[in-house]
Amino acid sequence: MDKPALYLIKVGGNILDDETLLPQFIQQLAALHHPYVLVHGGGKKATTISAQLGIETRMIEGRRITDAATRDVVVMVYAGLINKQLVALLQQQGQNAIGLCGVDANLIPAQQRSHGTIPFGWVGDALTDEINTPFLCALLKQQLVPVIAPITHNKNGALLNTNADAIASSLAIALGTHFTVNLVYCFEKNGVLNNNRVMPALTQTQFNTLKNSGTIQGGMIPKLTQAFDALNNGVEQVYITHALHVTQLNTHTYEGTTLVKH
Amino acid sequence: MDKPALYLIKVGGNILDDETLLPQFIQQLAALHHPYVLVHGGGKKATTISAQLGIETRMIEGRRITDAATRDVVVMVYAGLINKQLVALLQQQGQNAIGLCGVDANLIPAQQRSHGTIPFGWVGDALTDEINTPFLCALLKQQLVPVIAPITHNKNGALLNTNADAIASSLAIALGTHFTVNLVYCFEKNGVLNNNRVMPALTQTQFNTLKNSGTIQGGMIPKLTQAFDALNNGVEQVYITHALHVTQLNTHTYEGTTLVKH
Repeated sequence: MDKPALYLIKVGGNILDDETLLPQFIQQLAALHHPYVLVHGGGKKATTISAQLGIETRMIEGRRITDAATRDVVVMVYAGLINKQLVALLQQQGQNAIGLCGVDANLIPAQQRSHGTIPFGWVGDALTDEINTPFLCALLKQQLVPVIAPITHNKNGALLNTNADAIASSLAIALGTHFTVNLVYCFEKNGVLNNNRVMPALTQTQFNTLKNSGTIQGGMIPKLTQAFDALNNGVEQVYITHALHVTQLNTHTYEGTTLVKH
Repeated sequence: MDKPALYLIKVGGNILDDETLLPQFIQQLAALHHPYVLVHGGGKKATTISAQLGIETRMIEGRRITDAATRDVVVMVYAGLINKQLVALLQQQGQNAIGLCGVDANLIPAQQRSHGTIPFGWVGDALTDEINTPFLCALLKQQLVPVIAPITHNKNGALLNTNADAIASSLAIALGTHFTVNLVYCFEKNGVLNNNRVMPALTQTQFNTLKNSGTIQGGMIPKLTQAFDALNNGVEQVYITHALHVTQLNTHTYEGTTLVKH
């Protein structure tokens, strides 16, 4: 029997910070033909509020150190302000959204990260095998729209800051056992660019080449690594596209980048 | 057929701010014999963070004015930080808690308050008749513990700051159609005091007398008004007690104040 279709949509920070694009994106979600789960990143708000609160941003070897004060800010901003604002906007469009983070209903247990001598602090990596998939399925069966903030927990009372692209990939893999999952990473660009043109398709081999040549760099590398991981673990399709191209998924007139296994 | 028992527990701010009492309170919740819903207030954190962010607290005729910046802070602190910290602590005790506010699953629609010429701002009053009771029942049926922050929405995209005592009363009334509800207002005192002694019972008539004489004053007046409202609208029992007396409800050795209709 065919599994029902589901979109797992990850939206990036720059859209969340844009007062013009955000409502348009929300309207696109409301126009989708299939059920969906929305995972959101953080935007610049957490950095702004940390600075206003006098919390210093510390980086070691290019990685952000999440001390307790910084963790509290990301919990407030991601699981509080941004999450509930998105839910309110979706409710306004008649979408019965429900805002959650990984601690709620033990949705996304995680392991606190430890990498040699770098004290990353309260950063976690989702335990994909332990995701509470039955609970998500029950919400979707009730026609609810889960909106998920990138906070997880260690099951020992501590909240953990977790990368939103990785959460989207983990959730897509976990839900792949029940649904035909289309994973969509959407943001303020039209797709994966090569010579300023959107690549309609990207294979794992091309990704490796473009990564080694420096054409694909920065945050796109972990995003695409997570995306290919999903594609190799039961997720039907993975798309990288502009947030305002999301409804193109309804009509198969798709302009972004589709990942290809080989 | 008897309706199943349910505790609706409202915990006040001073317990949330207390690093010693809070974990003890959480352990008491985990030891309750019946399902429960937890509603929490805000504590001093929102005031502290508002001050740190340079947001001025404005009062008109003794009431707090919730401008957009203040509303964003209470959403962050109540629906974000405090809500998710409570859920993490409950999960640590093996309680499968889920943190929500009134916008999630359209749980608590509200009407923005307008009182003559006072610009209260983003403050709402819950629409008790529109509470999404079936959704709460579905969560309880899944053995989940709803943990609810005092934020509602106007169904038109705006989040609203709402009194937590009032939310507890509204939820207790709404759930009274499906459950035998015991509404428990718990905080850092042992009950309703008269001459420094806890009153084991308080009638509506006694409340009116003690209110008029000034014995009961301040925040206790709206709390008890909400509490009697619940008692008069299908809620089985209403208790006012110390947060660390909550498990006494299991053993009928109860030390706080029980409200009595007449």
